[in-house]
Amino acid sequence: MVPPSILSPVTRHAPLAAAIVGGLRDVEDIFARQLRSDLPAVNELALHVERYRGKMLRPTLLLLSGMAATGAGDGASLTKAHRMAAAVGEMIHMATLVHDDVLDEAETRRRGRTVNSLRGNETAVMLGDWLISNAFHLCSHIGDPAINVLFGETTNMLCEGELLQLSRREDPSLDETTYMEIVRRKTAALVATCCSLGARLSGAPDEVQAALALYGERTGCAFQIQDDVLDLAGEESVVGKTLGRDLQKGKATLPVILLLRQATPWERSEILSIIHNRDGEVLLDRVRRAGTLDEAKATAQSLVDSAKSALDAVPAGPARDLLRELADEVVRRQA
Amino acid sequence: MVPPSILSPVTRHAPLAAAIVGGLRDVEDIFARQLRSDLPAVNELALHVERYRGKMLRPTLLLLSGMAATGAGDGASLTKAHRMAAAVGEMIHMATLVHDDVLDEAETRRRGRTVNSLRGNETAVMLGDWLISNAFHLCSHIGDPAINVLFGETTNMLCEGELLQLSRREDPSLDETTYMEIVRRKTAALVATCCSLGARLSGAPDEVQAALALYGERTGCAFQIQDDVLDLAGEESVVGKTLGRDLQKGKATLPVILLLRQATPWERSEILSIIHNRDGEVLLDRVRRAGTLDEAKATAQSLVDSAKSALDAVPAGPARDLLRELADEVVRRQA
Repeated sequence: MVPPSILSPVTRHAPLAAAIVGGLRDVEDIFARQLRSDLPAVNELALHVERYRGKMLRPTLLLLSGMAATGAGDGASLTKAHRMAAAVGEMIHMATLVHDDVLDEAETRRRGRTVNSLRGNETAVMLGDWLISNAFHLCSHIGDPAINVLFGETTNMLCEGELLQLSRREDPSLDETTYMEIVRRKTAALVATCCSLGARLSGAPDEVQAALALYGERTGCAFQIQDDVLDLAGEESVVGKTLGRDLQKGKATLPVILLLRQATPWERSEILSIIHNRDGEVLLDRVRRAGTLDEAKATAQSLVDSAKSALDAVPAGPARDLLRELADEVVRRQA
Repeated sequence: MVPPSILSPVTRHAPLAAAIVGGLRDVEDIFARQLRSDLPAVNELALHVERYRGKMLRPTLLLLSGMAATGAGDGASLTKAHRMAAAVGEMIHMATLVHDDVLDEAETRRRGRTVNSLRGNETAVMLGDWLISNAFHLCSHIGDPAINVLFGETTNMLCEGELLQLSRREDPSLDETTYMEIVRRKTAALVATCCSLGARLSGAPDEVQAALALYGERTGCAFQIQDDVLDLAGEESVVGKTLGRDLQKGKATLPVILLLRQATPWERSEILSIIHNRDGEVLLDRVRRAGTLDEAKATAQSLVDSAKSALDAVPAGPARDLLRELADEVVRRQA
């Protein structure tokens, strides 16, 4: 199932569209085959997780990067290894969603009930562990230990980003630099790895891999900022998941960090009390009026612009064009 | 730090003792080096986890199996790969402890406070993920993709055992066969992998690897039964962790499964109401009087006997002798 929000521009490049649609279908098959278990209780959970799959952003970026790295306008440069690595990236992402929902006590995800809300936190914790384990198991079958090292480093970084964020909850002194460090680790690292790995598996030279890593890192940071903006200012019925969790869980996000930075001491204590009272409506009104919601969006847009510039080092072609369009879509999306 | 309970017999074989003590020290170093992070918040948690390390049963078995496989009486057959794999096994085990404590809402472990009780469930979930990720990252550095596949399969199985157990909580129809299937996956699989991998890394023939896998599987099952017996009948001050969790969390264990099996319909409904009321004292009295606590211990002992027999296919020598002594210790231990 190819999500229109991320891939609609693809239709303008027919061979590219076919390569991505076909590639993502293969990724879905690899994903589902990996999660087949001889235990019915486990299979039932695996099916539930498949419903979580949404934008398939990471696999899409891996496949597209694999094509862009050679300047190909079709899927000729894509191999089985690309599709397996794409499934690994998606599976790691899926594991983080399952555990994030436990951390956030979220009730809904992709318009469905979360595993934790249906089956309890214990099952959700163990299911996430099983997904991580399966991701590494699948990864080992690609047969190149360097890819295992790379995904291992990436997942280490992802968890460190989450741990850093958890250690700074309810902390009004959290600044923009630390926020960006959290975002870079917990979200952008995996996106960057998917992009550079796509290029690497296509045999691209180091500078092309590095350019795609940079593109992925910046796009990933922009993606997370947009996620945080939607958590604060989005419509639950449009986004399709529980919103307002950042405020509930004491996580400072960019619009609020910027709001606190520009506040007078008097305003600051007022804002802290709004945060303390978990008053999402009032907080949203504040970041809107102070312009820091727009400032956060502008930061995301400038990351996207710089992600697009990084692609100058990548061969010109329809895949590179599409990567640029996708970066724009990351901050345009409302869901 | 070599725990006396598991390794005291070692002193009778001086070169073997030296190889294990030295080997475990290296394993501890590899473990600690792997968990070094550039984030102070993460390092602090890593130090806390190191305090969790107790018996080091899995690394000990891996090293001993590596020696037993060649009949060596010293550490000559042990390589860096043995020590790295031993650290991987311990790290996976440590991750399961951290997540188990979340699942069990446990307060103490190895006489210290659990991560969940100190820092909350969110941090404990993420810390466990970070440990799993680091285990696979370290594993990738051994450089043999087959070892990654093996540990991946093992961790998949471990999570499946936990998921099967979770799906059968509060279920009085859980029978001995399913209980043994849970135990085989959630505990014995990793022990078996450590044993067979030790042999494999020493270049042992397939039948020796298989014999050690069988030894590990049976020893692992016996270990878990003893754990469940201690959770029901142990002394908290001796065991050093929160007890009575199985009953609290609705997990049926062998003494209780056997009790229900031999009960008359009238007794059965009485026992189910004791379980429903979480009355650990009364339940303990029941399994004692009915003899099913002893029956569970006898099952563990017979698994140990059969584990020891499996070692007939392994070259004779002090390492094999010690593996047999260790198997006995697994059911003799009170902590």
